[in-house]
Amino acid sequence: MAKKARTAITPTRDENYPEWYQQVVKASDMAENSPVRGCMVIKPWGYALWENIVREMDDIFKETGVKNAYFPLFIPLSFLEKEAEHVEGFAKECAVVTHHRLEPSPDGGLVPAGKLAEPLVVRPTSETIIGDSFSKWVNSHRDLPILLNQWANVVRWEMRTRTFLRTSEFLWQEGHTVHATEEEAIERTEMMLEVYAKFAEEYLALPVIRGRKSKSERFPGAVDTMCIESMMQDRKALQAGTSHFLGQNFAKGSGIKFQNDKEQEQYAWTTSWGVSTRMIGGVIMTHGDDDGMIMPPRVASSHVVLLPIYKSDEDKEKVLEYTKALEKELKSVYYHHRKITVELDDRNIGGSRVWEWVKKGIPLRVEIGPRDIAEDSVFMARRDQPKKQSMKKDQFISEITDILDDMQKNLYDKAVAYREENTVNIDRTDEFYKFFTPENKNTPEIHGGFAMSHWCGSEGCEETIKKDLSVTIRCIPFDGVKEEGNCIVCSDKSSERVVFAKSY
Amino acid sequence: MAKKARTAITPTRDENYPEWYQQVVKASDMAENSPVRGCMVIKPWGYALWENIVREMDDIFKETGVKNAYFPLFIPLSFLEKEAEHVEGFAKECAVVTHHRLEPSPDGGLVPAGKLAEPLVVRPTSETIIGDSFSKWVNSHRDLPILLNQWANVVRWEMRTRTFLRTSEFLWQEGHTVHATEEEAIERTEMMLEVYAKFAEEYLALPVIRGRKSKSERFPGAVDTMCIESMMQDRKALQAGTSHFLGQNFAKGSGIKFQNDKEQEQYAWTTSWGVSTRMIGGVIMTHGDDDGMIMPPRVASSHVVLLPIYKSDEDKEKVLEYTKALEKELKSVYYHHRKITVELDDRNIGGSRVWEWVKKGIPLRVEIGPRDIAEDSVFMARRDQPKKQSMKKDQFISEITDILDDMQKNLYDKAVAYREENTVNIDRTDEFYKFFTPENKNTPEIHGGFAMSHWCGSEGCEETIKKDLSVTIRCIPFDGVKEEGNCIVCSDKSSERVVFAKSY
Repeated sequence: MAKKARTAITPTRDENYPEWYQQVVKASDMAENSPVRGCMVIKPWGYALWENIVREMDDIFKETGVKNAYFPLFIPLSFLEKEAEHVEGFAKECAVVTHHRLEPSPDGGLVPAGKLAEPLVVRPTSETIIGDSFSKWVNSHRDLPILLNQWANVVRWEMRTRTFLRTSEFLWQEGHTVHATEEEAIERTEMMLEVYAKFAEEYLALPVIRGRKSKSERFPGAVDTMCIESMMQDRKALQAGTSHFLGQNFAKGSGIKFQNDKEQEQYAWTTSWGVSTRMIGGVIMTHGDDDGMIMPPRVASSHVVLLPIYKSDEDKEKVLEYTKALEKELKSVYYHHRKITVELDDRNIGGSRVWEWVKKGIPLRVEIGPRDIAEDSVFMARRDQPKKQSMKKDQFISEITDILDDMQKNLYDKAVAYREENTVNIDRTDEFYKFFTPENKNTPEIHGGFAMSHWCGSEGCEETIKKDLSVTIRCIPFDGVKEEGNCIVCSDKSSERVVFAKSY
Repeated sequence: MAKKARTAITPTRDENYPEWYQQVVKASDMAENSPVRGCMVIKPWGYALWENIVREMDDIFKETGVKNAYFPLFIPLSFLEKEAEHVEGFAKECAVVTHHRLEPSPDGGLVPAGKLAEPLVVRPTSETIIGDSFSKWVNSHRDLPILLNQWANVVRWEMRTRTFLRTSEFLWQEGHTVHATEEEAIERTEMMLEVYAKFAEEYLALPVIRGRKSKSERFPGAVDTMCIESMMQDRKALQAGTSHFLGQNFAKGSGIKFQNDKEQEQYAWTTSWGVSTRMIGGVIMTHGDDDGMIMPPRVASSHVVLLPIYKSDEDKEKVLEYTKALEKELKSVYYHHRKITVELDDRNIGGSRVWEWVKKGIPLRVEIGPRDIAEDSVFMARRDQPKKQSMKKDQFISEITDILDDMQKNLYDKAVAYREENTVNIDRTDEFYKFFTPENKNTPEIHGGFAMSHWCGSEGCEETIKKDLSVTIRCIPFDGVKEEGNCIVCSDKSSERVVFAKSY
């Protein structure tokens, strides 16, 4: 048996995918668990990625006319109860504030005191508290539309948590809009889903399937939930963003009414849409390899690390001077909307230093030693390719944006190819079951991938698949093939294929 | 009696300053109270100001080597108890999470369920939860310094709240740093205070006094609290930012230890520093006038509003076309780090439209009608000056950044002059008492201003003044005059004057 190549991450993806994920998060120094159950600490290298996502996405939102605002962290219990499905969906995982101070207890510690008349729920999402403001702000059709977004933390008391993917507290944006007509609200729901899809593809290099959820997977209280779904390297699906058409449900719950142009009072139509720090988990699981994280250049925490190499003190001075000059030049280059960011790691500690940056997933590594300087060259490695290459320094500076763009494209193309390889049209029930049954019981995560199969539309068939295989309908794709077929479970007639997959 | 000039805000500052403040907040559409006790809703026009503050300040932090991260919203009660003064300082105003779900009650509603083993406090500040991470991250002197910042929401259950100035939930940044030596930690504390002072002066146009707090006014658990203090138009002081040297207090509480270069284990030295949405209250109270808000151009929610004026449909088309072309040109001009932002208000509803923008405090208003277009001119008004002027359009475009800079400087100069007018050296006790006693009992807010007086350093004298006059030592200024004198209360010897004032 051939000797296995050494990898920076143990176990590898093939050996144990969930554990590989945790090890990549750790080795990349992006985040860690906190002592507070299910809450994470986002470390600077992980937070910088989130900051870039926020900045780019915020600009795009604003281009569509959305403005930012901020609403209270706390939601009175009575507000949450205004929409029946909504409160049912969130009641089981709420952090509840019941007291507003601490006082000494007989045993010397502190205990909660000052009981609140009405408990406050730490927002799991803000439809009801924002709806209350909307009900005051909307009077006439001239007040519409309202297009708001907030960047905030939310809390859902999840039982099983995993860094970035599912945490009790996470960071997100939640957009909330109010419209005079159903058509306009649906149009906005679709528009924001497309914003998410393009962002995922163009910035995160995540190919996504755009579609709508089946009824059982909808946001609690929504009339229609649209989503983008992406395939991870264990072939499971990750929902990377959702956009909800809320109909008049929340408008009725919160009393968002207006005089229409015929001077009749009517309820407004609302939408909400969100993406969260969960996307970072998607980036890790789509692009990471057995050596650790790989960051898509357009949102990377930093673009390039400079690694000066020297032995003598004389060399040290020369090499550091050259490296600092290069740093300065690179920092003045624009890559898309922002300037190139550069790390200068002058620890001069050889191999372990290089591997740290490999594991962190920085797009480009540049080694600079006395011989490179003699030739006015740099020694460059791209995180997504094994080979390193010597380049003239000036060529590197003039081509760096092209190199980053090429890497961005390469990551996307690889992810598309992976998804296509692992997406299969399946029409026979036994084949479907086999597809989702792992061959090796030691790696239960590895299975077929996405099955494009027919579904009759019944919740019963959906439930059967979920119970038997832990497989759900990820979405009914917008651009799916319309064709006659038979439900994969009950063989009833169906007019289109849907995406079945295991999911995060 | 001469007829009083009409003002857009009722009451005026002289009539009722606190109520004037609330009316400006309302009329400017920056924020409003929420149904959640003491929490505010920050509306888009107010949030945009905060966003600009965040962006500019974040860049400055990063230039000093600080990186952003994110820590949990919740702090286990036992963590808060690790520093005795600290927990005492915050115990009386904590939101406490005691349950993690809701379940149906017999009467049909929902009640808190799933009691937590240990209550969680919603962070009032994060020294203890971040200290826990630091204790894991710091092992050797080579791990130091650590320079982190987080942008976050915090909760302090204040009994009396006022929008922006004192709210149960507010937005802020909190910087937390760890150092190997006392000197380095003090240097960082001073550095960040200077960052705040410069930001207040150069961006918010708030002149500030830099100094340190007396012991009784220190942050709970700090060894030294440095602050910037600014005078509002009711002559009260507003603390606009604080920077704390925490000594080894929190390092001992959280166990932040490292091996120094002599291989001895020792506790680290920490700092923390913060500014919050409270600064927005300071901007309103420093620059606002009886017509509403006045925004300093460098952080203004938007720079200029274009107000097309027309009567006929023919004019409408012409005027709108001209206005849109102007909008496009203006938007390509850079003012400091960001592009000019432009509002185009084409409601064409005359006077009330102009007054809305006056009350919102946008720096520049530009009216454009058919006659202006005929002369290729615009009619421009600056929010800080009564006169309007006609200018050639091209001149306006080429001079807009100078006009904004001039307004920025004018606001600052006016605020400096106001503070100087109302700051007095006082050496006699009776004069001191008279200075802080309002002449008219109907306007208790109006009083002398800042008294620069001698203080012996005793907490007793501080307490007497606080009890008698609700006046506190705002700070012991860094650049105060060192001179012999006698304490304003007890006549004991003193070597410098301190700032006495009423405060927010």
